[in-house]
Amino acid sequence: MDFRTIASAIGALTAALGLAMLLPALADLAVGHPDWQVFLVSSLITTIAGAGLWGASTGGEAVLNLRQAFLMTVLIWLVLTLFGALPFYISDLGLSVSDAVFEAMSGISTTGATVITTLDSAPPGILLWRGLLQWFGGLGVVVMAIAVLPMLRVGGMQMFKAEAFETPDKILPAAAQIAMAMTTIYGILTLACATAYWVAGMNPFEAMVHALSTVSTGGFSTRDASLGAFAQPAIHYVSVVFMVLGALPFVLYIGVMQGSVRQFFGDSQVRLFLALLAFATLIAISVQVAGGIAGGETAFRQGLFSVVSVMTGSGFGLADFSAWGPLAVSLFFVIMFIGGCTGSTSCGIKIFRFQVLARDLYQHIRQIVLPSMVYIKRYNGRPLPDSVSTSVQSFVFLYFASFLILAVLLSLTGLEPLDALGAAATAISNVGPALSPELGPNGNFASVPETTKWLLAAGMLVGRLEVLMIVVLFTPRFWKA
Amino acid sequence: MDFRTIASAIGALTAALGLAMLLPALADLAVGHPDWQVFLVSSLITTIAGAGLWGASTGGEAVLNLRQAFLMTVLIWLVLTLFGALPFYISDLGLSVSDAVFEAMSGISTTGATVITTLDSAPPGILLWRGLLQWFGGLGVVVMAIAVLPMLRVGGMQMFKAEAFETPDKILPAAAQIAMAMTTIYGILTLACATAYWVAGMNPFEAMVHALSTVSTGGFSTRDASLGAFAQPAIHYVSVVFMVLGALPFVLYIGVMQGSVRQFFGDSQVRLFLALLAFATLIAISVQVAGGIAGGETAFRQGLFSVVSVMTGSGFGLADFSAWGPLAVSLFFVIMFIGGCTGSTSCGIKIFRFQVLARDLYQHIRQIVLPSMVYIKRYNGRPLPDSVSTSVQSFVFLYFASFLILAVLLSLTGLEPLDALGAAATAISNVGPALSPELGPNGNFASVPETTKWLLAAGMLVGRLEVLMIVVLFTPRFWKA
Repeated sequence: MDFRTIASAIGALTAALGLAMLLPALADLAVGHPDWQVFLVSSLITTIAGAGLWGASTGGEAVLNLRQAFLMTVLIWLVLTLFGALPFYISDLGLSVSDAVFEAMSGISTTGATVITTLDSAPPGILLWRGLLQWFGGLGVVVMAIAVLPMLRVGGMQMFKAEAFETPDKILPAAAQIAMAMTTIYGILTLACATAYWVAGMNPFEAMVHALSTVSTGGFSTRDASLGAFAQPAIHYVSVVFMVLGALPFVLYIGVMQGSVRQFFGDSQVRLFLALLAFATLIAISVQVAGGIAGGETAFRQGLFSVVSVMTGSGFGLADFSAWGPLAVSLFFVIMFIGGCTGSTSCGIKIFRFQVLARDLYQHIRQIVLPSMVYIKRYNGRPLPDSVSTSVQSFVFLYFASFLILAVLLSLTGLEPLDALGAAATAISNVGPALSPELGPNGNFASVPETTKWLLAAGMLVGRLEVLMIVVLFTPRFWKA
Repeated sequence: MDFRTIASAIGALTAALGLAMLLPALADLAVGHPDWQVFLVSSLITTIAGAGLWGASTGGEAVLNLRQAFLMTVLIWLVLTLFGALPFYISDLGLSVSDAVFEAMSGISTTGATVITTLDSAPPGILLWRGLLQWFGGLGVVVMAIAVLPMLRVGGMQMFKAEAFETPDKILPAAAQIAMAMTTIYGILTLACATAYWVAGMNPFEAMVHALSTVSTGGFSTRDASLGAFAQPAIHYVSVVFMVLGALPFVLYIGVMQGSVRQFFGDSQVRLFLALLAFATLIAISVQVAGGIAGGETAFRQGLFSVVSVMTGSGFGLADFSAWGPLAVSLFFVIMFIGGCTGSTSCGIKIFRFQVLARDLYQHIRQIVLPSMVYIKRYNGRPLPDSVSTSVQSFVFLYFASFLILAVLLSLTGLEPLDALGAAATAISNVGPALSPELGPNGNFASVPETTKWLLAAGMLVGRLEVLMIVVLFTPRFWKA
């Protein structure tokens, strides 16, 4: 393997991350907090390391083969996480190495679980850095889902070879073009979200940080009580709108910008996602009303917000839905796994894969009842090849296997069975809070053992990289010429 | 549809069940217990109803089409369960309708969970009837797996079109021939088991009843403390041997009887099953030793017995493995789902399907890494067609979906989350005891609400009929001409 292309890409992105650390430095300087030094030092280390790697690895071929693309993608996430953890470790929040890596991984994987218990008194630099990590992570996921995964044919993503771009055979040019278009759309959404939060009553700084972690369906907040710390209902509704926008397929926004709203709402993934949101919200409202927990607008807002927060994989907290009874707990556990749409910042198994599974199942049952009939599966009007079905089924199988293995390992580190199940689910699905009395619904993991934090961070990476990206690296075949 | 063939088969089997009720009547008469009247009345009702249905439905075509075969299989299990519940309801054990149906379903589905808390003082008739229900259920499962499911192509079973029989196109003659051969093998195993139990120290009656529920991997005992009530280690080892024999593919016994032991141990399903048993036993022993719970032969015997009892879906209790720590609980939860071999009396997803899943996954990962290579899947030396993979994947997906739906429904009836998960798993996998402080390890469900019992009974049926048999009946397509 020629590793120079990989090293050069990692170097460039690391240098960019280092430069981004100057933003929190400025934020701390603006309020006169000494933490600006933390970010300046981190920025110097990161930028120099990244630029050095970049400089040392020029001259490689710009064309990546399949295996290099796999390796590069995984390494980018790993390396950026480690450098992103630097400020957490250096600052005086009292975080251990495990804590810092957990927080950075939770940020960049847009999970939103945190080990910091003093957000209310944290300096602005740290808060902004957490938001930025989620924002970059969200962008990375969208670009990966649209530009990289379809070519690697991971988890049925070959169905989504971006038609909006004239995809050439080579990966890099297309990726750059896609990254540009997506960054524009993502930036517009973020600015719109920040403005809306500000109009709804947040101060400009908190509006900006929450916008970064809302559009990326990340879930990091500037407050220990998450969005529950803000009394204004308008803020909660703004959050709902932009979490949903972050969980819809970003490619479709290109069509919307060209004026074609019909194609957007005609997309079967969008329709099913919105329908499921509505249905789950209805249940979430009913259990609150039936249980005498809340009524009227409060029940509606708490139900809608919680369902959207969990299903999009954001993980912002507003009300403690783990106290809404067994039906609610089951509901949130299930929608945690479902997740949002493919090609968005959201997480989980994703709507598209359930649609493929349902079509396979329907075909299978038809063939059992009427063996002589031939039935062609279609998705969004196009034929659905068997190869996509196989990919999706392997993905779902690996996804649940990872979940179970992680849950077992977590229980071995001392978590109670329900905590282990809830924490494994929230890590693999990149949601944030766990559905258990100990760890939910604001997703604070400060109290768990160190080993547990490393396991959870690994789980977040596995979930974010669609499992197969990691599994492939562990096959001997991958490393053979 | 012409229902006469279906009605005639159900009638004949019901009448046979009615005649079988005379055996417990004789057992009660022998000790002078008045319960003989319970069985005589039940027998009269059942035999007359069955014979009447049989007589009224003669003249139908003897050839079943696919959909009739589905309907017949499901109806047979349902009708026999309802009639099998009669003695439980009529006897003075104080059982409600739900209790009686639960007990009969648990028996005939070879699950082994019970609602009776006074087994130690129960009359012999009831104890024998419970054993007989499991024995008939086990036989039914083997015949169904070998003669019916392969033709219905349920869950990948088309791989197992019995080669030992020259299978003609028509279902009934083959089924009769298979039923005969299997009954012979099954009967020999049962007699051998009863003799071994007797030699090991049980009295003849208890040896017979336990043999009926051991070879069928059922798990009903004559004692409230299950096999833990017997102090002799030899009894526990006898149980282990015959539970394993009940969980191996019955078709292979035909080869063994013809002297070909090599084919038996060359079967990849048998090898993996035995390897997994050994591996799980090793873990079960280690956790006992490491936790200071037991050591030496006791740890070995308790570990081996518990692993075999759960993995074969028997559910006999010896030691409370739910107190062996989180690793043990995880282990037993996982092997509960794995189950035994296809074409045996055992339950769960079964070894064969995991082998198919593993081959699919391996093929998928190879194709991701090296897209240009062509890789042919093989199973037991024969090519593994994609249609089998699809069937298996649909099966596993539906299996876990049923498990989750059942767990949610159970938690709505008031079970604690862990109890709900454990009870759903044990019902769907037809094991018996649940992995929770409330409901394990002897599997007594007397204390749960009535609705919970009905849900669990339904779960047992769904698990026993390989899920798809039930799902198919709920598709509109099934009922159209």
